[in-house]
Amino acid sequence: MEGNVDIECEGVEKMERNGSAFEERGMMNREPLLSKNRINTSSQIAIVGSNVCPIESLDYEIIENDLFKQDWRSRKKVQIFQYVVLKWTLALLIGLATGLVAFFNNLGVENIAGFKFLLTSKLMLNHKYYQAFAAFAGCNLVLAICAAVLCAYIAPAAAGSGIPEVKAYLNGIDAHSILAPSTLFVKIFGSVLGVAAGFVVGKEGPMVHTGACIANLLGQGGSRKYHLTWKWLRYFKNDRDRRDLITCGAAAGVAAAFRAPVGGVLFALEEAASWWRSALLWRTFFTTAVVAVVLRSLIGFCRTGKCGLFGEGGLIMFDINSTIPDYNMVDLLAVMLLGVVGGILGSLYNYLVDKVLRTYSIVNERGPALRVFLVVIISLLTSCCAYGVPWFAKCVPCPAGLEVDCPTSGRSGNYKNFQCPPGHYNDLASLLLNTNDDAIRSLFSSLNANEFRISTLLVFFIAMYILGIITYGIAIPSGLFIPVILAGASYGRFVGKLLVSISNLNVGLFALLGAASFLGGTMRMTVSLCVILLELTNNLLMLPLMMLVLLISKSVADNFNKGVYDQIVRMKGLPFLEAHAEPYMRQLVAGDVVSGPLITFSGVEKVGNIVHSLRLTSHNGFPVVDEPPFLEAPELCGIVLRSHLIVLLKGKMFTKHRRLTGTEMLQRFHAVDFAKAGLGKGPKVEDLDIKPEEMDLYVDLHPITNTSPYTVVETMSLAKAAVAFRQLGLRHLCVVPKTPGRPPVVGILTRHDFMPQHILGLYPGLDPHK
Amino acid sequence: MEGNVDIECEGVEKMERNGSAFEERGMMNREPLLSKNRINTSSQIAIVGSNVCPIESLDYEIIENDLFKQDWRSRKKVQIFQYVVLKWTLALLIGLATGLVAFFNNLGVENIAGFKFLLTSKLMLNHKYYQAFAAFAGCNLVLAICAAVLCAYIAPAAAGSGIPEVKAYLNGIDAHSILAPSTLFVKIFGSVLGVAAGFVVGKEGPMVHTGACIANLLGQGGSRKYHLTWKWLRYFKNDRDRRDLITCGAAAGVAAAFRAPVGGVLFALEEAASWWRSALLWRTFFTTAVVAVVLRSLIGFCRTGKCGLFGEGGLIMFDINSTIPDYNMVDLLAVMLLGVVGGILGSLYNYLVDKVLRTYSIVNERGPALRVFLVVIISLLTSCCAYGVPWFAKCVPCPAGLEVDCPTSGRSGNYKNFQCPPGHYNDLASLLLNTNDDAIRSLFSSLNANEFRISTLLVFFIAMYILGIITYGIAIPSGLFIPVILAGASYGRFVGKLLVSISNLNVGLFALLGAASFLGGTMRMTVSLCVILLELTNNLLMLPLMMLVLLISKSVADNFNKGVYDQIVRMKGLPFLEAHAEPYMRQLVAGDVVSGPLITFSGVEKVGNIVHSLRLTSHNGFPVVDEPPFLEAPELCGIVLRSHLIVLLKGKMFTKHRRLTGTEMLQRFHAVDFAKAGLGKGPKVEDLDIKPEEMDLYVDLHPITNTSPYTVVETMSLAKAAVAFRQLGLRHLCVVPKTPGRPPVVGILTRHDFMPQHILGLYPGLDPHK
Repeated sequence: MEGNVDIECEGVEKMERNGSAFEERGMMNREPLLSKNRINTSSQIAIVGSNVCPIESLDYEIIENDLFKQDWRSRKKVQIFQYVVLKWTLALLIGLATGLVAFFNNLGVENIAGFKFLLTSKLMLNHKYYQAFAAFAGCNLVLAICAAVLCAYIAPAAAGSGIPEVKAYLNGIDAHSILAPSTLFVKIFGSVLGVAAGFVVGKEGPMVHTGACIANLLGQGGSRKYHLTWKWLRYFKNDRDRRDLITCGAAAGVAAAFRAPVGGVLFALEEAASWWRSALLWRTFFTTAVVAVVLRSLIGFCRTGKCGLFGEGGLIMFDINSTIPDYNMVDLLAVMLLGVVGGILGSLYNYLVDKVLRTYSIVNERGPALRVFLVVIISLLTSCCAYGVPWFAKCVPCPAGLEVDCPTSGRSGNYKNFQCPPGHYNDLASLLLNTNDDAIRSLFSSLNANEFRISTLLVFFIAMYILGIITYGIAIPSGLFIPVILAGASYGRFVGKLLVSISNLNVGLFALLGAASFLGGTMRMTVSLCVILLELTNNLLMLPLMMLVLLISKSVADNFNKGVYDQIVRMKGLPFLEAHAEPYMRQLVAGDVVSGPLITFSGVEKVGNIVHSLRLTSHNGFPVVDEPPFLEAPELCGIVLRSHLIVLLKGKMFTKHRRLTGTEMLQRFHAVDFAKAGLGKGPKVEDLDIKPEEMDLYVDLHPITNTSPYTVVETMSLAKAAVAFRQLGLRHLCVVPKTPGRPPVVGILTRHDFMPQHILGLYPGLDPHK
Repeated sequence: MEGNVDIECEGVEKMERNGSAFEERGMMNREPLLSKNRINTSSQIAIVGSNVCPIESLDYEIIENDLFKQDWRSRKKVQIFQYVVLKWTLALLIGLATGLVAFFNNLGVENIAGFKFLLTSKLMLNHKYYQAFAAFAGCNLVLAICAAVLCAYIAPAAAGSGIPEVKAYLNGIDAHSILAPSTLFVKIFGSVLGVAAGFVVGKEGPMVHTGACIANLLGQGGSRKYHLTWKWLRYFKNDRDRRDLITCGAAAGVAAAFRAPVGGVLFALEEAASWWRSALLWRTFFTTAVVAVVLRSLIGFCRTGKCGLFGEGGLIMFDINSTIPDYNMVDLLAVMLLGVVGGILGSLYNYLVDKVLRTYSIVNERGPALRVFLVVIISLLTSCCAYGVPWFAKCVPCPAGLEVDCPTSGRSGNYKNFQCPPGHYNDLASLLLNTNDDAIRSLFSSLNANEFRISTLLVFFIAMYILGIITYGIAIPSGLFIPVILAGASYGRFVGKLLVSISNLNVGLFALLGAASFLGGTMRMTVSLCVILLELTNNLLMLPLMMLVLLISKSVADNFNKGVYDQIVRMKGLPFLEAHAEPYMRQLVAGDVVSGPLITFSGVEKVGNIVHSLRLTSHNGFPVVDEPPFLEAPELCGIVLRSHLIVLLKGKMFTKHRRLTGTEMLQRFHAVDFAKAGLGKGPKVEDLDIKPEEMDLYVDLHPITNTSPYTVVETMSLAKAAVAFRQLGLRHLCVVPKTPGRPPVVGILTRHDFMPQHILGLYPGLDPHK
């Protein structure tokens, strides 16, 4: 059952409500440290009985147990070949599917929004202003309610951008519903409806999430429910390969959203992925190339006019054809100023988004109906703003010698007539009563420097800045790129108009640089943003200026707060592992942070003990210790995973006496039996059916024990343990004692033990900055 | 003394001669394994008395000893601020310096080569053909000899591309002379002379090496010899920060060579660096932005005509202005064919370069005079080819309606008159008797599709393919990019001419795609090559085709051999750590590969023992074991480095009795005393002056012991140990026993222990592919 995951455990939604699943856990551990040499300590997750769905980690480490080794040795060349072929086929399919979805997304938005604007402008032409507003606001409201109902009732995880969640997944955080098929469905349709409803939201973030969901679905190989799984896909039933696929999916999403294949790869590298390797670079590159080819073909097809109102645009979204003049020192100073102010406004944007999100979460936790209500309010507000504000703008006479119609007739064009007399246009309406893409195109345009008046730009900037902030967080799929680009471009063009007398650069270029400065100030990416903007605008000569403005705005904004995605990850309470160790971790050792009761199993363990431990705790990894009579002294054999234990118990290969049954088991079980199913679909301890008489039997854990767990000595600096944990992509890190004569393992470190809240909770005296 | 490093130990040069320093070591270890539970084993380097200079590893791990912790705790905010400011200042300076060097490089080449071609064509115009050849070949020979003498006598490490060496350095291999100031000097001037001498070599690889050398020099902060070190730079006296600077330098080199700032960042990421993190992405991006700004300003200055014969070209090197037609299925098939053939020819290129390099190394090892002789032969051959072959080409009548002169008068132009009657031009001479940059520009041009005949392109392709292969490896700085682009572009244009009747794409685009296919086939980069080519040609619409051709050629070529840089690294015997573990490593455990006698020190050790061990071995890390009477049972305290031991012994804080003197030592010594000087300049054991009576005294090793060494249990799978070693950037990895009651450390793994030659030497029965 795909669907009930969301009902049983709402994942991220629930986490939002309770502040954080993690923090709750952090509280539990705030007992004072009794002794540095505690032995019965562990920090496996233990929130049994709590309503909160535990955030699990993913297994990126290869579990080298006997079953794996048996499988590895018996691999045939043809199987390796199958795996490689399949890997590339999946990358191809991800590219194809993401490209298609992006195309249909564009098609849907352009046709729905186009119909809406045509209807409104037809009524306006006949001076039926109230009816026009009713039609406009009505269309928006219906679309918004559809999107909100989908989102609030079917897949709450589909709300928002989705980039923070994908980022968290690729960092090793397994929040089940994030990549579920229902989320994919709602994300695609909710995004089309939401963007068409005129909200100040983008389809870029949702496309990244969509790409990741598609990759997850393809890697899963259809649905087990309908017996549609494909045998070959068993190679991909592990978190490692799934992570690679989802990285490809995220890259494909950006590539499709911005039609920027190289930018997509770099986005995946710089922002999304936490682990990267050369082979992945190549595979994501292939995926985004497929996206580019698919989009190019489909857009070429649309040029023939068979796509309804969607007919414009090529592979480059906002083609800036103006030549770049030789800029001088004054221009450089202007660009620097743009960067500084953009950085400040960008970090303020992040701050306000965070505040608004926290406020909204109070409303959102009261149930789906209130979520829909919030969407209705924002929709009405947006409609009023878009339709109402242009009434205050003066009419501008049409410039002479234009190649296009003025005022605009029909769907596309920058010279909206609105309430103006013939031969005049309303420049504010041209921006506000238009799709976001068209507004950006108008702002970037440098054909007519006087197209928009300075006051119009200021009003539009303020409207976009505020609407962007209050829209993010409501129950619709909403990307952050477009609002930020809209606000940034109007800000940049505004500055350009102010400096027009002293600068060689034209207002269109200023708009582009303004957008760059805002993006740098909120998202804090560098190379990927730079390449995305270059691919968006096809203007390579802007490169040095763009780099300059991005560097400055990011540097300025970094002094105030974190990037917007990092901020959302943190707000949702997801235990995100940073790439670097915090400074204060150097003052602690690994043994200082292990906590909670440690449960270990013997190499051949009593079934009852295992079942009991599985039921009582929600630990996911248990150390296995070989003890006498098999050995002279206890030794750490390795770690077993909860999911593997449940599969093993289901097999019921029990013995009456404590003896090794490894070789028989290796004949009966195969690695594929223990393969990890899709997200959130692992076997559960409740499914076990162990009879009371079986409880006293024994089971040999050796075949499923990962005999090569990474270990650190308890006196290892916590900073270095954290680096090892993050670099190696671990889920469990065994802490072993330094002095001989003690049990062979003193605890297990998990991702939660490296969280600042946990550590600073244990040691409130630590200075977090030192 | 910077210079004598090269004389004492020729580093890479010597390695080439002896096959490999490493392999020699591998041989020593090929004793049969006596027991899996050996205890006195270690694999620290032990080639004392050998003539071969040991290849050392770099310390990328933070050495967390007491001194470091003391320093860390006493850090003031102002010091952190100083560090950050300095970091960015250095990045700025690297960008500035690399940009300037690249500019002067171009200026030098264009003026020298321009003078040479002007002289030759003047003599040709007067029909003094023999004198013209004498002048041409004479100029070439003089320039070549100058370059070769510099290279052979002053800095042999400056020969070749330099990219493999930089790559090896960033992988953690410390081959002293690679980044020395003398290498920098020779690389800059040798590259100018070599390119001007008409060799089929590029200045791109050398620019990368130059950038890295500049970064190293700046990080070192001047010369100790002239007391020019700067106090603030003490923060950068460690391998970690130096690695970051050199990564920036390599990126700046590519950015300067191709005027491709984003390409430079991606090159550093994809090809050069072995460890990467987000912060570095941002810093390299800043450096390359500085390079772009510097180059843009200087080229702007040259447009005014103040740079002699260098006046052409803007920030885009090969501006391709042709519009891209809608390509159809036939075009796609043609591009795929181009990719497949390009991949095959590219891998053949690598194979032949390898063979030629191995042959040349026999000549090169006989002394500098023979190296110069080899350069003379190749120079004469190149001159004969460039001047002789065009005689066989037919004269082509000048096309009508050209905007430029035909035949060309003066320096630049594609219509060289050569021996032809007036109104005709020799198309082969236009390609061969021109600078490499101009030849590429002509090949990429799509203004006149019939400018070059099909036979001309074929002859030029063969000439470039062969000359490129035989030129790499002689004693001049020689980049591989330009020869590969030349051969690829002529091949592409040749294919374009063949398919002109059935394809929509023009010959200039075919030339570009041909160059891409060759680059993909030899270098095996994807994203970085793609971006570099886009930035070189300013043609974003080529993106999908370029991606396609790169993917195909790389995939095809990967079936035959490795990328050319990897191949050179391997041929030079540098112990390069791959990012992934080899499959056969899963069949071994960490304890299986440790070898050699293990030398451990006690926590408070006798001076004599230390001096003796330092003199007898060349180990760089020694485990420190705390023993009774300080503890009940022996415990692993940590690891000390050779360089730290020598500094400690120089301080002579000895005691008569075995006692702890840590706190006193922490007052006397500071972390900065133990900071690592520049490459190859560490303190040597020969410099120690220990009196015989001091040999019986004791010294406390605790303050300099890294108490948090990474450890693996001896039964850990070798594959997982290799992953940890590589991911964490280690130099030493302690192997600890599994069973209690044994000494607390059984060996140390270093980079050499993970080399395939070493492992397969120990276990000849292993299947390297399984």
